[in-house]
Amino acid sequence: MDYPDYAEKLGRLIQAGQAERGILLCGSGVGASIAANKLKGIYAGVCHDTFSGHQGVEHDNMNVLCLGPRVIGPELAMEIITAFLSARFIGNDPGQERHARRVAKIRKLES
Amino acid sequence: MDYPDYAEKLGRLIQAGQAERGILLCGSGVGASIAANKLKGIYAGVCHDTFSGHQGVEHDNMNVLCLGPRVIGPELAMEIITAFLSARFIGNDPGQERHARRVAKIRKLES
Repeated sequence: MDYPDYAEKLGRLIQAGQAERGILLCGSGVGASIAANKLKGIYAGVCHDTFSGHQGVEHDNMNVLCLGPRVIGPELAMEIITAFLSARFIGNDPGQERHARRVAKIRKLES
Repeated sequence: MDYPDYAEKLGRLIQAGQAERGILLCGSGVGASIAANKLKGIYAGVCHDTFSGHQGVEHDNMNVLCLGPRVIGPELAMEIITAFLSARFIGNDPGQERHARRVAKIRKLES
């Protein structure tokens, strides 16, 4: 099993509605995020700080968090995971339509 | 113009062979990396440290570096860009075939 296999496994679960969000780990998180984003409906980001961990969900509808244990340690990872899991997409809130517009443009790139 | 428009613009240049690599900026880098990875042949990563900046190229064949100016400052960004531009993919070197195998699995997810 290589990191793209795990990314695909998780992505297929989300595509099938069996999971809402997921977390992938690889050396730096980069390879896992590239692989996961190749799948339709999967929006994966490397986030090594808490701001990105919630903002990726709030603005970009990120549903897969990618972390690199060769770059950050376990306590920071836990706080980023909490930020990720606590956040919700705000693009459908009044005044925040620009985020939904941008996510729609990403969806267009998938088709 | 939104970040997916810039990601697409850069991605099309690389797909057409008019550029080899590129750099995208958005708030945290996450949105830009999601959008860019939706394009075939584009391998984009958020790298906010120099290790990821070169390892993403060496192991994952990353051709687009995504940076978030709301998260890191200009001097760190410059050092990451140097790491990114100085690195080359090592998956075709003797003993490093596992990286080529993983990149081939990502390519399969694109098709």
